[in-house]
Amino acid sequence: MENINNPFIMVIFGGTGDLTHRKLMPAIYNLMAEKLLPEKFAVVSVGRRDKTGEEYLNEVYSSIKKFSRLTPEINTWNKLREAIHYYRTEFTREESYKGLKKYLDGLDSKYGTTGNRLYYLAVAPEFFGPIVGSLKNNGMTESPGAWNRVIIEKPFGWNLESARNLNREITNAFNEDNVFRIDHYLGKEMIQNIMVIRFANAVFESLWNNRYIDNIQISSSEMVGVETRGDYYEKSGVLRDMLQNHMLQLLTLIAMEPPVNLSPDAIRDEKIKVLRSIRPFTSEEVRKNVIRGQYGPGSLGKTELPGYRQEQKVSPESEIETFMALKMHIENFRWAGTPFYLRTGKRLDSKSTEIVIEFKSLPEFLYAKEYGSLHPNLMVIRINPHEGVYFQFNTKRPGAGVNLSDVKMDFCQNCETVANSPEAYERLIHDATRGDSTLFTRWDEVEFSWSLVDSIVNAWKNEAPDFPNYKAGSTGPEDADKLLLEDGRKWWRI
Amino acid sequence: MENINNPFIMVIFGGTGDLTHRKLMPAIYNLMAEKLLPEKFAVVSVGRRDKTGEEYLNEVYSSIKKFSRLTPEINTWNKLREAIHYYRTEFTREESYKGLKKYLDGLDSKYGTTGNRLYYLAVAPEFFGPIVGSLKNNGMTESPGAWNRVIIEKPFGWNLESARNLNREITNAFNEDNVFRIDHYLGKEMIQNIMVIRFANAVFESLWNNRYIDNIQISSSEMVGVETRGDYYEKSGVLRDMLQNHMLQLLTLIAMEPPVNLSPDAIRDEKIKVLRSIRPFTSEEVRKNVIRGQYGPGSLGKTELPGYRQEQKVSPESEIETFMALKMHIENFRWAGTPFYLRTGKRLDSKSTEIVIEFKSLPEFLYAKEYGSLHPNLMVIRINPHEGVYFQFNTKRPGAGVNLSDVKMDFCQNCETVANSPEAYERLIHDATRGDSTLFTRWDEVEFSWSLVDSIVNAWKNEAPDFPNYKAGSTGPEDADKLLLEDGRKWWRI
Repeated sequence: MENINNPFIMVIFGGTGDLTHRKLMPAIYNLMAEKLLPEKFAVVSVGRRDKTGEEYLNEVYSSIKKFSRLTPEINTWNKLREAIHYYRTEFTREESYKGLKKYLDGLDSKYGTTGNRLYYLAVAPEFFGPIVGSLKNNGMTESPGAWNRVIIEKPFGWNLESARNLNREITNAFNEDNVFRIDHYLGKEMIQNIMVIRFANAVFESLWNNRYIDNIQISSSEMVGVETRGDYYEKSGVLRDMLQNHMLQLLTLIAMEPPVNLSPDAIRDEKIKVLRSIRPFTSEEVRKNVIRGQYGPGSLGKTELPGYRQEQKVSPESEIETFMALKMHIENFRWAGTPFYLRTGKRLDSKSTEIVIEFKSLPEFLYAKEYGSLHPNLMVIRINPHEGVYFQFNTKRPGAGVNLSDVKMDFCQNCETVANSPEAYERLIHDATRGDSTLFTRWDEVEFSWSLVDSIVNAWKNEAPDFPNYKAGSTGPEDADKLLLEDGRKWWRI
Repeated sequence: MENINNPFIMVIFGGTGDLTHRKLMPAIYNLMAEKLLPEKFAVVSVGRRDKTGEEYLNEVYSSIKKFSRLTPEINTWNKLREAIHYYRTEFTREESYKGLKKYLDGLDSKYGTTGNRLYYLAVAPEFFGPIVGSLKNNGMTESPGAWNRVIIEKPFGWNLESARNLNREITNAFNEDNVFRIDHYLGKEMIQNIMVIRFANAVFESLWNNRYIDNIQISSSEMVGVETRGDYYEKSGVLRDMLQNHMLQLLTLIAMEPPVNLSPDAIRDEKIKVLRSIRPFTSEEVRKNVIRGQYGPGSLGKTELPGYRQEQKVSPESEIETFMALKMHIENFRWAGTPFYLRTGKRLDSKSTEIVIEFKSLPEFLYAKEYGSLHPNLMVIRINPHEGVYFQFNTKRPGAGVNLSDVKMDFCQNCETVANSPEAYERLIHDATRGDSTLFTRWDEVEFSWSLVDSIVNAWKNEAPDFPNYKAGSTGPEDADKLLLEDGRKWWRI
């Protein structure tokens, strides 16, 4: 990996957008405060809006004050404001890039940034292709002795075909090593921790297979609805918005074999093997094992909530899913017979992302025989909002006689230091500056996940959903519970 | 097991002694307060001292106030004081028992206790034989339709021969089913929990063998010296005082195979198998794997502490050990290759009893290779003063980059309810009233542990120890650390 001291200019397309203000600028500020940026460094925010550099800097400062986990401190901010530039241009027009190139080259001499560029595409997906094309055509993607990398936000396509087209455009301009497809989920502390927990602990590693694990449940639930993003959601649904990327990434990290080493490619080689081992989603498989849902009107506490079809910019007959639950089989030696249950949705009764590992039950002898069925051992990796690991097991309740109860051991990573866990974007930007692509998705991962999504979409085409089928503020559609009940299991709520 | 409602009289020999006041009476009070004693119940304290029933009750009340975990409450105490009687007699003389028998029979009609007797020998060990003999000879150990049980405090002999003699006297009077050899350690909450943790949790049960466990460390350290018990200690030493009973009991519970069922005999059948599987302590084995120590003068904080040889009622040339550390091999399929390290002693720098299960380390690839040796996973069963389970594992420290650190998950049973964990004696008395001997030692266990102690004593005879060899207030003799160092291991301090 390259040293942190290698200089560069970060060029943000979409410099006035929401993502830049809420996530990128606070992340950059925090990285600078923690001395994780090189001394020779500049940011160029490219936007179409007309504003002065001074106006832009004031907006950025407000955003940092509002969204940064660290309270801005005057010395760091003074240093950062010297490094940030607003560059107004029409980035959809290829001609605009001549000026941008010249501007960046000029900054190189001022900042000593030696031609290294980190392009961040914080723009709507339809601009991804045009921007990388223009960069390429203006000689901004290659320069002798310098690196040029691009970070791309999701969505990376809408199906396999559009993803392939987009990828062709991008890899025409940048080679795969320089393409950083961001999945901000992978920047979360506990997601990075999954591999460490698995491969740095003999106990967990020994138990991590179908001999000991009955099933694994990956849940990511949101309480919010689609809010103002109805137009986006109508095209994506939860399948593209959550399953294609975040949920499948969690699945691969939990299920992968130990990699040859910790290099990004060795890790991604193993992740792709998981995706390739998923039992194909034939129409029959989808009908049996994939549940979709859409929220209707409901309530949370005393607040009445509209149904999805009543949300802004949503069709009143929309058949887009806002909830999914799946049973998946990973057909390899490690996992044969141990199903993975995934579920994710909006407008549920709680906000949390967690992975529950349910261990096999003991044979019903001894305590299980004398005191009735015992709860199985559970290990829970909590990703959000709590970060940590939780283990549930059975002990004797204090007192005369033998009475069993389940208790928990808890390791909570962010309980005491809530404000100081770095944000996902900090980690990801930092990794990209170092050329470490471990936490970014490689093209073949994206490709495989889209082909999986496509097969579900195809199966769904043949059958109209009976929407809405769950109330806003509930635990989701009944069928999601039935999916496990039929297997004699249940979703664990921790 | 008999129902809690079966009536009985508890007869305490040594009714004015320390054990009765500090442990038995508070335990009886607490059992009554928690409604774990039958309605038809009486206590007869037998003592040699001349005092009125009123005087005795006042003393008992003070003891309960001072030593009971529950604050005495007037209704319960009024009920209990009606049940307690002081009976003055010379219990070393067989003739005295005629009167005692008559007295007890008389109470039967008053209390409806139907002839059931629980004799508790809270006296010096030289009285065990005479008391049970006198009970037998006066027809007090058998009565039609009633039960007669005896609880015997340690020490149960001083070596194999004396233990056999004592056992002969006892089983001449009571059959084995009615003999309750108390080891108050077994009454501690977390010791009862060891079996539950092992056999009610799939995860622990799966890991509990030489494939996953590198070594097991059982430590019981005391900060106190011999205090006023120098005369007793000169005859026992830590070998007889701690190892022969408590430490070996812990070992058997940790190492035993799953029993056929939870009956006392099925459990004890498995415990005895562990003792029988211990690699014999030949002289050679003792020289290599058994460390003994005796404390010399030292200090704890600012307090100067005398050496053992300077304690009251101790010989200034005493060769009695106050510390032991052993490496033991259990030669069966489950444990071959996984050593057990035991250590116990007085005047150490901390007071704690705990069992550390050190799991095997992972192969030195991946994180272990990139970030240096990782700490092995540790599971700690904490018995005293904390009660609970602790698990140490490796995670990624929050922040950019990958830095590993070990963290713990902790289940602390008595952290929130210190005052309410029942005392060992409560549990044990309660079990004896129900005829449940699970937590008492069977004769063959005692016999085997004495033969093991005898072989160590025999080996020691041939070599004079170099005492004192550790300072009061230290961690014990250096050789105890070397014992593990030579194996590339260390004692874990949690």
